[in-house]
Amino acid sequence: MGNKGEKTKEKIRQAAYLLFAQKGFKAVTMTDICERTGLSRGGLYRYYSGTEQIFSEILSEEYVIADRIERQESAKTILEDMLEAIRHEIMDKELSLSLAIYEYANLGNEEFFTNINDRAKKRWINLLNYGIETKEFKAVDTEQISDLILYYYQGLRMWSRVISFDEQAAEHYVKSVRQLLFRE
Amino acid sequence: MGNKGEKTKEKIRQAAYLLFAQKGFKAVTMTDICERTGLSRGGLYRYYSGTEQIFSEILSEEYVIADRIERQESAKTILEDMLEAIRHEIMDKELSLSLAIYEYANLGNEEFFTNINDRAKKRWINLLNYGIETKEFKAVDTEQISDLILYYYQGLRMWSRVISFDEQAAEHYVKSVRQLLFRE
Repeated sequence: MGNKGEKTKEKIRQAAYLLFAQKGFKAVTMTDICERTGLSRGGLYRYYSGTEQIFSEILSEEYVIADRIERQESAKTILEDMLEAIRHEIMDKELSLSLAIYEYANLGNEEFFTNINDRAKKRWINLLNYGIETKEFKAVDTEQISDLILYYYQGLRMWSRVISFDEQAAEHYVKSVRQLLFRE
Repeated sequence: MGNKGEKTKEKIRQAAYLLFAQKGFKAVTMTDICERTGLSRGGLYRYYSGTEQIFSEILSEEYVIADRIERQESAKTILEDMLEAIRHEIMDKELSLSLAIYEYANLGNEEFFTNINDRAKKRWINLLNYGIETKEFKAVDTEQISDLILYYYQGLRMWSRVISFDEQAAEHYVKSVRQLLFRE
């Protein structure tokens, strides 16, 4: 697929992301996505066979860490960048996909989510191991801390749809992760 | 209301809890609850005006901490008991109310959840302050650590419905909370 095709797919994913965040998974139709993107049905189906394929691609998009470790950037810098991205996500309740994830999971996609979760965990474990190696991080139990980073984040994402957060909830997350990893 | 009335209400809440965990909030009807409890419609409505009232009472049930602090039990013992209860809850995906909470929140009950959340937070802050006073806990930022305890737990509860956990996810939670609070 050419560059233009990739751009159209990106546009489709962005429009669909907002719809899933707003309505959950089940209520979103291909027609909704046509309306948001201005694509014809034929145009949309050329790229995606259904909402399921779009949703699964959105969830598979990942923070790129491996490249930065490869280039031997500082583990602390990589972590701070990720925490900054996460802080923004926590505060942006409109962009939470928690409900859509829930609904999609209930359609029987456990294996899919197990894969996504495993990959996310592996990514964090890699970064933690790298930072421990460079002595930027304390010698923590990397499995334990990556669980905390992931599920604490998910809890905040879910509750950001249920109640209003002030900036503090995100601050506390960042502060806790830092305390667990950095030497005083 | 007499002792028998309280027992019947308890029975209704238990039956309803299982239904909410299974089906979410919206799909559960008073008829479902009649069937599960064996009560007549008249019998059920004598105690509760609708599913909303039952759900809100279930969510308001609380771990009793204040009494134990009053009796000057060890903060460490109280904490360990709570962690043990939480560990069981995390592993029991059938009992997760996350989806029901989500649905109920989307019906516009933000204030209700803000109250529940505030109360839960206050309860944890009280326990943490008490343990810091008795020198059983480290002098942590109690707001920060109670956020972690609450939202990390919620993330685990939500994901326990999405993927299968092994015992480890709950272990990691307990281990992290202990490390944050206990002196080595």
